[in-house]
Amino acid sequence: MKHYLSVNDIDNLTDWVKEARDIKANPTQFKTLGEGKTICLLFFNNSLRTRLSTQKAAINLGMDVIVMNFGGEGWALEYVDGTIMDQGKAEHVKEAAQVVSQYADIIAIRAFASLEDKKQDESEEVLMAFTKYATVPIVNMESSVGHPLQALADAITLNEANTKKKPKVVLSWAPHPRALPHAVANSFVQMMQLQDADFVITHPKGYELDTRITKDSKIEHDQNKALEGADFVYVKNWSSYSDYGKVLNEDKNWTITKKKLGNAKFMHCLPVRRNVIVTDEVLDSEQSIVIEQANNRTFSAQTVLKKILENL
Amino acid sequence: MKHYLSVNDIDNLTDWVKEARDIKANPTQFKTLGEGKTICLLFFNNSLRTRLSTQKAAINLGMDVIVMNFGGEGWALEYVDGTIMDQGKAEHVKEAAQVVSQYADIIAIRAFASLEDKKQDESEEVLMAFTKYATVPIVNMESSVGHPLQALADAITLNEANTKKKPKVVLSWAPHPRALPHAVANSFVQMMQLQDADFVITHPKGYELDTRITKDSKIEHDQNKALEGADFVYVKNWSSYSDYGKVLNEDKNWTITKKKLGNAKFMHCLPVRRNVIVTDEVLDSEQSIVIEQANNRTFSAQTVLKKILENL
Amino acid sequence: MKHYLSVNDIDNLTDWVKEARDIKANPTQFKTLGEGKTICLLFFNNSLRTRLSTQKAAINLGMDVIVMNFGGEGWALEYVDGTIMDQGKAEHVKEAAQVVSQYADIIAIRAFASLEDKKQDESEEVLMAFTKYATVPIVNMESSVGHPLQALADAITLNEANTKKKPKVVLSWAPHPRALPHAVANSFVQMMQLQDADFVITHPKGYELDTRITKDSKIEHDQNKALEGADFVYVKNWSSYSDYGKVLNEDKNWTITKKKLGNAKFMHCLPVRRNVIVTDEVLDSEQSIVIEQANNRTFSAQTVLKKILENL
Repeated sequence: MKHYLSVNDIDNLTDWVKEARDIKANPTQFKTLGEGKTICLLFFNNSLRTRLSTQKAAINLGMDVIVMNFGGEGWALEYVDGTIMDQGKAEHVKEAAQVVSQYADIIAIRAFASLEDKKQDESEEVLMAFTKYATVPIVNMESSVGHPLQALADAITLNEANTKKKPKVVLSWAPHPRALPHAVANSFVQMMQLQDADFVITHPKGYELDTRITKDSKIEHDQNKALEGADFVYVKNWSSYSDYGKVLNEDKNWTITKKKLGNAKFMHCLPVRRNVIVTDEVLDSEQSIVIEQANNRTFSAQTVLKKILENL
Repeated sequence: MKHYLSVNDIDNLTDWVKEARDIKANPTQFKTLGEGKTICLLFFNNSLRTRLSTQKAAINLGMDVIVMNFGGEGWALEYVDGTIMDQGKAEHVKEAAQVVSQYADIIAIRAFASLEDKKQDESEEVLMAFTKYATVPIVNMESSVGHPLQALADAITLNEANTKKKPKVVLSWAPHPRALPHAVANSFVQMMQLQDADFVITHPKGYELDTRITKDSKIEHDQNKALEGADFVYVKNWSSYSDYGKVLNEDKNWTITKKKLGNAKFMHCLPVRRNVIVTDEVLDSEQSIVIEQANNRTFSAQTVLKKILENL
Repeated sequence: MKHYLSVNDIDNLTDWVKEARDIKANPTQFKTLGEGKTICLLFFNNSLRTRLSTQKAAINLGMDVIVMNFGGEGWALEYVDGTIMDQGKAEHVKEAAQVVSQYADIIAIRAFASLEDKKQDESEEVLMAFTKYATVPIVNMESSVGHPLQALADAITLNEANTKKKPKVVLSWAPHPRALPHAVANSFVQMMQLQDADFVITHPKGYELDTRITKDSKIEHDQNKALEGADFVYVKNWSSYSDYGKVLNEDKNWTITKKKLGNAKFMHCLPVRRNVIVTDEVLDSEQSIVIEQANNRTFSAQTVLKKILENL
């Protein structure tokens, strides 16, 4: 593997999860693998879990880490080819990506969707420009379209908590006061399509995800029906995809409650808005496995970095 | 010791100062103690000395360090239980604290007083919420109520510079154009109460510190009288505690001058406003030991981290 | 060498370039030299190349690195002696410089020209104040007057790409929408004066650099004439020095094109505004060596840090 840009870069999910769990059992067993190698984390947006867990993963592998908040610390980047750069952008990504490649063995990038320009968001402008022009491997720390490090952590968490041959896993939309990107939901769906499960997506009408991603995954607009007999309920808000970036409603009937959850495990990528996405009762119960999900972010990143390092 | 939240966590000041001075004599002697351990420094406010000295202390102990400016780089945190989080706060401290605990062996936190809401400040909301929900030790890098790393550095500095069995130490208020928190003064008072000294607090009326902290420490409103025969004068501005967070006056008669100082050593936690808190003449003289105080911040932090690491 | 403040601190450019190229051939050969040593990078302005390459250089030398964005993370500094500090500045550089010296073995500083106050800019206020009050070596990561780490990287790049005994090197002004500092141009001129080359500076009238820096370097106001037979064309915008900090014109006739470049190599310190400073055609051609220039920033910094470390 050269880059880790999306869930599609996982060649064998079962093997990857197995490897991640082996790493988790002894996180520093590959401490020499990253020696003398530097990873540069470029943040174009805020981050808590990704920021800390990716650093931790790199440290566990013996790498040196350079963190940069690109927006506030660097120069505004131009992405369009052929532009006469006489406006606000000081540097073209062509140079920036090649330059950072001189100082790092791996570049990891977080650049969210704007939710304003669908076409631009779908092009994953920042991630793809760095992938095109950089001369070192690129890791996606959440792009406008996907969050594959989160999806791999989710797969690890599901694998650890699952006791059934074919569990029922539900991805449920939940209300949120602000417009949120589709990245986490997209990558979760793609990851679920790589494994054997009874997988259902549920959301109010109008919140359909990109059908090129959901493909033939089952969609059920009746949340209660979707949740029936669920083993895992993965909850996430996203804004409309068809009416791009819009909040169509904040229907509180979709908030996940203890009653709705039944005996299922509750999953969420965090940060989560309590009593909006899900009630306190659920989050504070044993059924919530969101903290373990966050913990697995380290081993998800470490698995990815290990595979890249082995290929350098 | 699990956490280092306040001066009250110092079980034996004499021993701690002795240990700190031993570490200072050979700062890397415990380089292996922190190997494979990560400290995460979370800044909710600006910092120079604390930021650099705590990193340096961790490095001296062989630890890996992750620094995060929580305000600008992460998500706005909610601290109140049971809130319906449909406003500006994206994440509850319950999750944030548990999550950071997954990536760090020790968490250090700086979160200043707002000086707007006395009750909230006195609850040390941020520090205490992390202490409650984190699953790893917490270090106070200045909370709304105390700055115990500074107080330990002050104790080391006093011990190094003192030649008397029972020195006279004066904590003097001094004028300042802006409202400042009580944290440094509070922790200095608490630390002085742990040792044998002729300790006097002096400030204009209206600037009384919390009596639950000053207890039976001597208070003298006549600054000149207080300073008579002093061996050490620790100077600090703080805003009113009774008329909470207010600047009652900026009386320049309280500025520390060479004449007022006499033969005493001058101490201040820094940053210090020259010719407002104290004259250039004092700061630029041999009697000022503020730079050594700053230097001792490293060994204060290192002593605390060492004790926590030994207990992990 | 104690400090690296300007090109004048290079005692023998030929030797330094030779040493840099030797380091580049095996970047970690002096990994033990910096062990147990800490460098603190203080940024008063944005940075991409300098930020990353200086960290990388320090890592290659085995040093620990502490990065601080002084403006946003620390306290506003006062530089004037004798000020009554009752306004916006919380700390005097006298204390700040001494204090940072307690935590670092080397301090590196970036503080750009304001382009508002010529006298203040020419005093290199921030850099010189730190140099005066710090007790450890200081490295200039671009001051108001010079960018000597860039100039050394330029010298390495010229040396690598040059095939002639006495190449023709042209420093050409080019248009830019915003007022830019003179630092890069100044240091490039000073560096060129240290070696045997046919060196020509070209710019529109009114853009004369400080004659104390250009000295007897050849100046040719006709760009086409200047570029004739050039082996290397170093392009950079700067604002007027005589009409300090002003953009006198943005004459697009000065943009470097393929035709103007001829067979010369194209150099620029980056970031570069495409199709304003230089056309895409040039930047995307084999004649551009700007990425290798950026790469050499690591070995420029590493050479400087190595020399300082050897002298500690």
